[in-house]
Order: sequence, then structure tokens, then C-alpha cells
Amino acid sequence: MAERLYLDWNATAPLRPEARAAMIAAMDVSGNPSSVHGEGRAAKALLEDCRAKISAAFGADGADLVFTSGTTEASALALAGRGLACAGIEHSAVSAWCEDRLAVGRDGRVEVPDPAASTLQLANPETGIVQSLPEGLAVSDLTQAMGKLPLAWNWLGCDMGLVSAHKFGGPRGIGALLLKRGLDVEAKLRGGGQEMGRRSGTENLIGIAGMAAAAEAAARDLANGVWEEVAAIRDILESALFAGASDIISVSKGAERLPNTLCLIAPGWRGETQVMALDLAGFAISAGSACSSGKVRGSKVLGAMGYGDQAGQMVRISIGPGVTEENVLRFSETWTRAYAKARARAA
Amino acid sequence: MAERLYLDWNATAPLRPEARAAMIAAMDVSGNPSSVHGEGRAAKALLEDCRAKISAAFGADGADLVFTSGTTEASALALAGRGLACAGIEHSAVSAWCEDRLAVGRDGRVEVPDPAASTLQLANPETGIVQSLPEGLAVSDLTQAMGKLPLAWNWLGCDMGLVSAHKFGGPRGIGALLLKRGLDVEAKLRGGGQEMGRRSGTENLIGIAGMAAAAEAAARDLANGVWEEVAAIRDILESALFAGASDIISVSKGAERLPNTLCLIAPGWRGETQVMALDLAGFAISAGSACSSGKVRGSKVLGAMGYGDQAGQMVRISIGPGVTEENVLRFSETWTRAYAKARARAA
Repeated sequence: MAERLYLDWNATAPLRPEARAAMIAAMDVSGNPSSVHGEGRAAKALLEDCRAKISAAFGADGADLVFTSGTTEASALALAGRGLACAGIEHSAVSAWCEDRLAVGRDGRVEVPDPAASTLQLANPETGIVQSLPEGLAVSDLTQAMGKLPLAWNWLGCDMGLVSAHKFGGPRGIGALLLKRGLDVEAKLRGGGQEMGRRSGTENLIGIAGMAAAAEAAARDLANGVWEEVAAIRDILESALFAGASDIISVSKGAERLPNTLCLIAPGWRGETQVMALDLAGFAISAGSACSSGKVRGSKVLGAMGYGDQAGQMVRISIGPGVTEENVLRFSETWTRAYAKARARAA
Repeated sequence: MAERLYLDWNATAPLRPEARAAMIAAMDVSGNPSSVHGEGRAAKALLEDCRAKISAAFGADGADLVFTSGTTEASALALAGRGLACAGIEHSAVSAWCEDRLAVGRDGRVEVPDPAASTLQLANPETGIVQSLPEGLAVSDLTQAMGKLPLAWNWLGCDMGLVSAHKFGGPRGIGALLLKRGLDVEAKLRGGGQEMGRRSGTENLIGIAGMAAAAEAAARDLANGVWEEVAAIRDILESALFAGASDIISVSKGAERLPNTLCLIAPGWRGETQVMALDLAGFAISAGSACSSGKVRGSKVLGAMGYGDQAGQMVRISIGPGVTEENVLRFSETWTRAYAKARARAA
């Protein structure tokens, strides 16, 4: 039997070897960064070194970087109690705190009449569609874009950004709020006053070390054009799928989109059935964001874009560096055969 | 020069080898626990296996265990918006959300007239003093007690408990809220609905694996009487210090206290000066909780206990398994000599 193939990088990317090594090294830094003795100061030095590395990798020297347990916590910190406007395509960690008042077109693009009172993702986790962020945007969820698109925080023009390490090859459970310098947020976690009082709690130093190493590696990959190669492989996959089944829809084809993401509608074939069939055949794909897996009938994102019933017939295939042409052609063959069977059963 | 000696286990305990190994193994479990494919299910299985191990190690099969980024987050989840009563000896992560209405005696013990509307720590991080928790207590901060005292959550009789892995040899940045089954809390982090909707966000699986391995090792140590040996070493240290300087005060001497903690007042010698002098001599100790290091003049805990100016002349020495008699006698000699010098300077 062929090796399993992981094609769900937008749910979580494999841990980068650089992140693994940095985490193992950080296991030897045993102090509490709040302690004043030598062990504490060594831990604090590692913490600040990591912060500086991430800031440099993200082109974010104009921002304060507040470490959180991931985008979900960064989102609560940036958004709770503000009643910002958002579109129906935001991740649930964002929409939990916002009012769904922004219209989204069939093309997945969102109009933002009042940026200072709005939040808008940079790239959608399901479709991969990239937005043009308006100047002065209050908050942007950068989770899927960071590490996949050549971007500098300093140039985005938004007040706050949300990132999560495990989307760019760091560990799960660590992320950050990027905060334009001079702004502040009301702390949700209170006590010891860490992170300049914005987020109390002893820092997840091993996770932070992994995040910093992953951010640096991601920036290096971007500079080296690695994601252009990924896009080329994704395009080969897309063409192969269309060659095998001409009635499919590639939701973000032609749009500006993440280099690694393919959002596919197979008319009449339920997304969750596709995921299970492909899983049995050795391929990991998804029928939406991992966080909404098995919870809703169909993609909320595609629903917001006006896809109706077809929102339930969607799968997301998301790849990354190291996924080869041979890999995706093997997937395409398997998927096409399974789709033909599904159509035959339905006929 | 002699090797450095870490005597600040209550700030953060060294990472246990079992935790390190479990974390490295978890680095190979690459899925998102919310994904439905094989990789996601493997991650979910590890997550639930860890939850069950921690629950067993803590004697907590009557509780739901909600993973958080540590005690600070667990505290916000358990306490925010409830206006519970607390005493002035609580950690800042607890007191941030409570009203300081409970009296504390010179002996460090707290009376709790209305347990259902109160929170009380099981053991104090600075003095080590252990409380008798009243039946029906709303919330208890178990952070310092868990792993050092032989206790079962099921027998504590409180509704909610807070724990943090790095205090018992797991990594920093992961902990849990223990919740008597049948109770619920309002989620502070919202979105994907993880942790039965109580705490959204992709789980810190590597950290959780480390926490589970540390909890099991801690339970095994307790069963093997390891902390009784620690207490014996602590008592040797205490006797040696009194032999060297008869005017010192051991704040929790004679009280029921953690087996590893010594809370010392050296009349006229500032705690922070002690920490710096001993740090230069190769010993890591503290002048209070790590989270309050360098932020206040003197220990808030000792202040609440009525120690007045002496609260600023306190140091905490906290040890753990593997710290030897030779180690603590070396500390005692160095400390005693430094104290004599400080007194000579003051005279």
C-alpha cells in the first residue's frame, strides 16, 4: 500500500525540522522568564530573542508582538467587546466576536466601507482567496497568509493582526497578536503582568522557540521562491482534476489566492463523503476549516459566497513544500476514480 | 567554580525527562485534533489519552479537565465576573478576579465563612502553607500543591481547581481547569468549539503530552515517598540555617506546609539583595512568586499575614527531588556567610 499523503496543510502544517530542533534546545532553558536570577534571565533572553526573530521574519518592526496560545486567543484579545463588522467568510474564532455585516461576493471578495470598524482576513482558509486589505483596517486575521505569501506586516496598514505558528510549521498552541506600536488592548488574562501587562501567564517558551524557528524558515522559503513551486504543483493538480472531471468547480480559480490551496466543488458528491473516501484511500483532505469539521452541513464560507447546496459538496486540498507532482497526480487519479463511482451510484 | 544550584522549583520546576521524551514523541503526531481524517484522529486520540492520564494521576475521574495555557487562563475561566471572595495571600492570577475580603492570620491560615462564594489556594507559593479546604469551596488554586502533596481531586470537595504543568515538571504554557462534572463555565476563548465548547483553539498537543507524562511521573514519585525525602532535605537546610543565624524567622515552620518550601526572613537584609547576592554565588532563589519578581517592594503574601517591613526581607528557597543534602548545606554555608557580611555592613 502506498504511503499516506497529507494534503491538509491549511488545517495544520507539518512541524518544520528547524522548529523541532529549536524546541528541543529550549527544553534545556529551564527558568521562568519572570525570575530575576540567572536561570530566569536566560529564559527571558530566549523569549526576547524569539520575539525579535519573529518580528524580523514578519517584517513587523513597527508592531508590538504579544504572544498568545494561538489565533483564537489573539482574536479574543483584539476583538472581544468591540462589535466590529465582519463578513460571513471569517474563521469562527473571528466571527465569534463580530457582527456579520459585510457583504461578500460570489468571487469571495469583501467590501469594507468602514475599515476602522471592521475586521477582514487576509486569506481565506477554505478558498485561499486573498483580500486587498483597506488602509486603516482595525484587525486582520493573517493566520493562513503568514508564511505562504510574501508580505510584511509593516506594509499591510492594519492596526492589529492575528497569527498562529502551526500554520507555518511551528507547533500548535502558540501564536501572537501583532499590534501597531502605540495601540493597546485590554488584557483578558490577568495576574503576573507578562507581555507588558497585555497577557499574563508564564510563557510557553518551548512553543515560542518553535514558532520563532518556523517563522525564520518560512521567511527564508518565501525569499527562495519555494511557494511559487508549490503553486505550480497546485496548478498541475487543478488541471489534472479538470481533465478527469469537467463538471467540477474550482472556487478560487482565476482569483488571487494562496499558492497551496485548491477549493473544489464536485456536483452531487458530499464533501464529507469525499473526505472519508479519500482518507480510506490514504489521502488527508478536508471539507472546510478543521475547526468546523463535522459540525455544520457544508462550508459556511461557500454559503456566504452564495454557493447554496454546492457548499456541501466542497473539499479543500492544501499542500506545501515537498509535496511533489507525482504525489498530486496520484491524488488526482484516486479522486477522479472515486468521483466517477459516486456519480455512477447516483445515476 | 561550583555548579549552579537551582533552588526555585516553585517558580518553575525543571522539565522531567519523561515529559521531554513525550513531547519529542508528540512532535511526530502531526494532525489537527479537529480534523476528521486519519492524521486528525491520531492527534485527537493522543489528546484524549493525555487527558485520561492526567485525570488518573490527579485522582480526578469526577471532573472534566479543560486544557488551558496554564493557571492564569484557568483562573480567568473559573473566576472572571464572579466576584468571589479571596484572601490577600492568593497569587495575582487569582486575586486579579476576586475581592480581597477573607482574613488571613499570622499563621497564614484563612477562614472561609461562605465557601460557595470564595476561592482559596491549597498551598501558598511563597510560604508553602497548606490550607484545609472547606467542603463546597467554589474554586481552589492547586498550582503549587499538585504533584507535591499526595492528594486526589475527587476528595478535595471543591467545584473547580486550577493547575499548571510547569510546577510539576511539565512544560511552561500548559495547564488545566478541573471542573466538577455537571458544572459549566462561560468560554473566554471562542470559535472552533474545542474542549466541549469551553475553550476554543487548536490544542497545544506537544505541551499536553508533556503535561501528561509529568503528571504520571509526579504521581509515581508521590506514591514512592520521594517528597518525604525532599522534606527531610528541606528540614536539614532549615536546621543548618538556624545554626548559622539564630535571629532568622522560618515563616511556615511548624505549620502544615509543602515538603519543598522554606520561607525565610533575615531581619534587616532585603529579599531582593539576598536573591542577587546568592545568584552571584551560583544559587537561584527568589524573593516571592516569580510573577511578582521585581514588581513590588516585599512579599504581598507576608504583608497580608501581618509581617510589615519584614515582608521585604523574605526569600523563598524551594527544592525538589534530586537536590541533595550536600547541595543544601553548600547553600546554607554561602547564605550564612553573606548574611553575616550584610549584618556587619549594617552595623
